[in-house]
Amino acid sequence: MNTPKGFSYSGVRCGLKNKRNDIGLILSDHPAKAAGLFTTNQVRAACVDHSKKAIQKGTLRGVVVNSGNANCCTGEQGERNTAQMAHLAATALGISPEDLAVGSTGVIGQLLDMSKVEKGIAEAATKLSPDPRPFMDAILTTDLVEKQAFAMIGTGIEGNDSPPSHDSYGQAVIYGVCKGSGMIAPNMATMLAYITSDADVEDLDLDAILRRVSDKSFNCMTVDGDTSTNDMVLVLANGASGHKPTEAEFERALGEVCVSLAKQIARDGEGATKLVEVVVTGTQDPKKIARTIAESPLVKTAMFGCDPNWGRVLMAAGRAGVPFLKEDATLTIHANGEDHILFEKGAPGPFDPKRVSTALKSDYVLIALDLGPGEKATVYTCDFGYGYVRINAEYHT
Amino acid sequence: MNTPKGFSYSGVRCGLKNKRNDIGLILSDHPAKAAGLFTTNQVRAACVDHSKKAIQKGTLRGVVVNSGNANCCTGEQGERNTAQMAHLAATALGISPEDLAVGSTGVIGQLLDMSKVEKGIAEAATKLSPDPRPFMDAILTTDLVEKQAFAMIGTGIEGNDSPPSHDSYGQAVIYGVCKGSGMIAPNMATMLAYITSDADVEDLDLDAILRRVSDKSFNCMTVDGDTSTNDMVLVLANGASGHKPTEAEFERALGEVCVSLAKQIARDGEGATKLVEVVVTGTQDPKKIARTIAESPLVKTAMFGCDPNWGRVLMAAGRAGVPFLKEDATLTIHANGEDHILFEKGAPGPFDPKRVSTALKSDYVLIALDLGPGEKATVYTCDFGYGYVRINAEYHT
Repeated sequence: MNTPKGFSYSGVRCGLKNKRNDIGLILSDHPAKAAGLFTTNQVRAACVDHSKKAIQKGTLRGVVVNSGNANCCTGEQGERNTAQMAHLAATALGISPEDLAVGSTGVIGQLLDMSKVEKGIAEAATKLSPDPRPFMDAILTTDLVEKQAFAMIGTGIEGNDSPPSHDSYGQAVIYGVCKGSGMIAPNMATMLAYITSDADVEDLDLDAILRRVSDKSFNCMTVDGDTSTNDMVLVLANGASGHKPTEAEFERALGEVCVSLAKQIARDGEGATKLVEVVVTGTQDPKKIARTIAESPLVKTAMFGCDPNWGRVLMAAGRAGVPFLKEDATLTIHANGEDHILFEKGAPGPFDPKRVSTALKSDYVLIALDLGPGEKATVYTCDFGYGYVRINAEYHT
Repeated sequence: MNTPKGFSYSGVRCGLKNKRNDIGLILSDHPAKAAGLFTTNQVRAACVDHSKKAIQKGTLRGVVVNSGNANCCTGEQGERNTAQMAHLAATALGISPEDLAVGSTGVIGQLLDMSKVEKGIAEAATKLSPDPRPFMDAILTTDLVEKQAFAMIGTGIEGNDSPPSHDSYGQAVIYGVCKGSGMIAPNMATMLAYITSDADVEDLDLDAILRRVSDKSFNCMTVDGDTSTNDMVLVLANGASGHKPTEAEFERALGEVCVSLAKQIARDGEGATKLVEVVVTGTQDPKKIARTIAESPLVKTAMFGCDPNWGRVLMAAGRAGVPFLKEDATLTIHANGEDHILFEKGAPGPFDPKRVSTALKSDYVLIALDLGPGEKATVYTCDFGYGYVRINAEYHT
């Protein structure tokens, strides 16, 4: 598998979850330039504070992550446990705890079982390899599918959700894994994304690139509008390929990886049956309108019910707080390879509701709202059905 | 029934809906001082524009309302139909169309059947009486229950959701009816509230009072965060009682009516099994935090599932964008006559999850989040369950 040179990964099961791996490690052979984005929630887990501090110097050697427990709202003991996770992993890897980011995801408000964590970290440190799959598994909670994305730099080949079958492509590679399926299952929360690259980005402003790319990917994605206490996106680039991409080249490739991961999270949203892409063009703030449509429970239940209910889309757009005239609005649905104009310049379009409803059964729907000349913004989301209620109401803490 | 003197009401069925009344009239014997609040949605129905204009002169004689059709996004023909509704009702009542507010609620994007409307208005004009119940019925769409509230002025008796049984109470009365059960059923939208009073408020700033009262009632209520295209709150006070309340007296009584109506709407939210009152104390903006908690799908599904999931409440509070320290936070649940502290000063409280879960089966739950010294804000909402998805996904437009 063509993962970035100079990185190794591992994942093991120590018993924090009932199934699947729950402790993961990423290690770079030597210090990697690093940038990170963290939750904006006022209620933050201790691991977020640790990782924000660790990344301040601009480099990291790696990451230690557990799933099954968010270690959030756990007081001073929780802070000590995060520090201990970094210490245990750093000792096992022969590096400094300040060179490791720490991530946690799972139940809020319960103390970590540190004897399990200690055993898991010790084992994970012995299993590092270029194969990222055990790590990818170790960060999941209620996700139904694993999520990874690749992009090649210096080839002209577009990014892909699955790795290429041989090693000859590209001069450098970006590889990302993430977890998240809403904000999330019972008492669980968190979107985690770990992106590694062997590109040499010494001369690039990695932090600014990550911010720009996240604004068009992770920050354009919503399942239920809730924001986790543990959210974290990290990119580590160790330069092991020896290839120095231009800023534009690296940003484009990182963008492919992040947009792919964001779409995968939206598609795997709790109870979701489809990926819904909302594209709004025009007005002073098309992103705000797109986000309001994507978060509207009425739009999302209509998508679940395959109902071409344009009134709800217009209503949601209208409540975003951004001025526009409905006389300028044209609403088009793209689904199942068909285009249907539902509303055009202030009046309903001459569409066939039954035909549109059938098209909406597709697992991918694009809602395009054109409000006049101007910028375009895209937000990724999913539909909203019985599954979301089942997952979030029937489990008891 | 002790409704305000000098007002008459009627409601008839003209066939815009399958069941129940769908045309309603309110008439004051003489011009009533009037104030109104209207949807902030950029996409507005023609009736909103008509009523905003009619109310500018500060007085109204009455209201004509239809349900079953929102007459929104219906172009110039829709505007002509709203004007025609006002004209037909005014002619039948022998007043000017500029003295009537117009309200519509129901399906978006379909033209009104004006022959039915004409017949309905003609019949409704012959059935005016002091009994408000046929009118109350005529403004409902998917509401499961009728919603009304009374308050007496000049008695010291607190307001009540049901009218007093005899006529001797009070020197003046405020009576309100409303509709709304979310933002709302399939393709339907709208919260309408019509409040009549025989108090003499000539010397009071009715507009300012309505704004202040709505900020603590209708604007503190959310079912799914969506805002209708047709929302309208009107208060008409005709002075027929001859009683001149003080501003404080009138505002207190109007507040009782509006808070009662807001709670009734939240409790009748689509698919709701309980009224949830969220009270936040402290910080710069407790209302913003209370609203974010009340709109969080994860909090609302936990309430549906009777799950004392304090982590979700803290998470939602934390994402409201208002600074606070979780070390200052104390979260208490009041339900079924019991108080349970779930989280206290940064750490989980020693509560019994099973006992709290049993208490949460109550049809009324108060979530109180204390974040330190400062103002208190209340938001009314409901839980979020399968019923909401069923109502909003299974109906086809």
